[in-house]
Amino acid sequence: MGIEAVLPDGTIVNDLLQVRKNNTGYDLKQLFIGSEGTLGIVTGVSILYPRRSTSVNVSYLGVSSYEKVQKVFVEAKAQLGEILSAFELMDGQTQEFVHRKTGNANPLNDRHGFYCLIETSGSDSESDAARIERFLERVLTDELADDGVLAQDESQIKNLWAWREGITEALSHWGGTYKYDMSLPLDDLYRLVEDCRMNLKHKGLLSDLDENNKDCPAIDVVGYGHMGDSNIHLNVPVRRYTKEVEDALEPWVYERVSERSGSVSAEHGLGIAKNNYIGYTRSEVMIGLMRGIKQMWDPKSIMNLYKYFPNTPSITA
Amino acid sequence: MGIEAVLPDGTIVNDLLQVRKNNTGYDLKQLFIGSEGTLGIVTGVSILYPRRSTSVNVSYLGVSSYEKVQKVFVEAKAQLGEILSAFELMDGQTQEFVHRKTGNANPLNDRHGFYCLIETSGSDSESDAARIERFLERVLTDELADDGVLAQDESQIKNLWAWREGITEALSHWGGTYKYDMSLPLDDLYRLVEDCRMNLKHKGLLSDLDENNKDCPAIDVVGYGHMGDSNIHLNVPVRRYTKEVEDALEPWVYERVSERSGSVSAEHGLGIAKNNYIGYTRSEVMIGLMRGIKQMWDPKSIMNLYKYFPNTPSITA
Repeated sequence: MGIEAVLPDGTIVNDLLQVRKNNTGYDLKQLFIGSEGTLGIVTGVSILYPRRSTSVNVSYLGVSSYEKVQKVFVEAKAQLGEILSAFELMDGQTQEFVHRKTGNANPLNDRHGFYCLIETSGSDSESDAARIERFLERVLTDELADDGVLAQDESQIKNLWAWREGITEALSHWGGTYKYDMSLPLDDLYRLVEDCRMNLKHKGLLSDLDENNKDCPAIDVVGYGHMGDSNIHLNVPVRRYTKEVEDALEPWVYERVSERSGSVSAEHGLGIAKNNYIGYTRSEVMIGLMRGIKQMWDPKSIMNLYKYFPNTPSITA
Repeated sequence: MGIEAVLPDGTIVNDLLQVRKNNTGYDLKQLFIGSEGTLGIVTGVSILYPRRSTSVNVSYLGVSSYEKVQKVFVEAKAQLGEILSAFELMDGQTQEFVHRKTGNANPLNDRHGFYCLIETSGSDSESDAARIERFLERVLTDELADDGVLAQDESQIKNLWAWREGITEALSHWGGTYKYDMSLPLDDLYRLVEDCRMNLKHKGLLSDLDENNKDCPAIDVVGYGHMGDSNIHLNVPVRRYTKEVEDALEPWVYERVSERSGSVSAEHGLGIAKNNYIGYTRSEVMIGLMRGIKQMWDPKSIMNLYKYFPNTPSITA
């Protein structure tokens, strides 16, 4: 709800209001949110916190295609509505990596092209449980999903989430990972991963763990993310980081996202890894307006230099 | 999710992204939201819209004190959680004005100090109905509310909402209304109305419709608003607008809100009615930072002149 921050010249921005509604002037706190310390140092926040949900359910589904994942998502929005708190998309490869890294058996017997982790958070345990059961029955009966389980207790909930949260660690286990964090229209969300995989294969840079041709730097191209936010993490696990893979990935991935009017930095920050790619999502005019604000509040450019903005003389000088 | 706007110099601000997550630079669209045309003209928006709720319930309660209203609110948050879509506070006076203006009989037999309109919006009609019934039973059994009804169909829902939505028209029926739109900490929300009423009474400026001393300009001081947003509309229905009432109200109401770190313009805009009172919520430093943005994008001050900012030479010159 509010922020307190200190500008480079020592000015204290006191926008720490503790009420939700306030229409007295420009909403300056919004400029600090996500500005990564380039405008000032945030020294205080006021936060509105909701009650913790008393009833949480988690289900894990196997789905054969991305097309069907989209249908399962629509069904979840329709049937679970206001209690739907997570709809995580994970492709089959990510789950295979978690299996190989941890040695744990996947919660579902067969292998599937895609997996969805669906969480509900509500305050009426009986009704919530009935709704997610009804939802599961529907997507299985309609053959949108091929298989599915529903966590029966807290420890099963934790185990199912581990198949999502274990992905990052598992991918880097064989060397490293190139990571991208993109927003794209939902229809195009997974095609980016497929096209990228094809691209590396055609260039002879990819050999999976079964083939295990160690001359190939890349092991796979995988995708996972948040359906409700239209946000995908395109990840490229590699045996080693090489210039060939980098050149095959960039600016290719940024161009593809730009063509679809997506964001090249969806939920993570720009920092020093993506500051030079902001132009794939934002126009020169927009970047110019941002620089105007930066220069107004930090004319000597002393705040978090070399980051966030593209490295051009006007900022780094 | 996005905005397109034109700045005074013709620059087109294209921030019309159609994905929810985007972390590529400052969130400039937020500056335009609520800026009342002082920075540029908004020419396009992209909006994320949720599904329409398939199940809506409305209940109308009579409560004896504001202290109990707060307890009913806590109970509603706890029991109705994610389906609670409105918790409207209305004092007994507002409902009496609606009754006198429309001639309609109040949905509850006895008169109560306060009334609450509680709405749920969800997607599971059976469970939602059971929950609001359970909630009603609880607040009546615990004697937090004295009486209550639950709409049984669409037309009853409309009728109950009319007791909230008819307030504005009813208040002005006997002359006019001084209107204030404040955010305040929830504990203090209604005390402002009581203190203001006392203030006008002490000054001999208030005589209600029953007494009907027409020498007194003010008829009452009433309050209604949105509990969930900690937002109250303090309204003063009058037989005629007079300088005495104005002087008794202002800056008194602004000072009281300022003492409690509230907002003197919660959900409505500043315009020309409240531009000179922004200082009761915002510091000089904050207003200065806002002027900086205004001057950067509108150096000739051609956009919505005389409004929004306090009328000082630096803006109106």
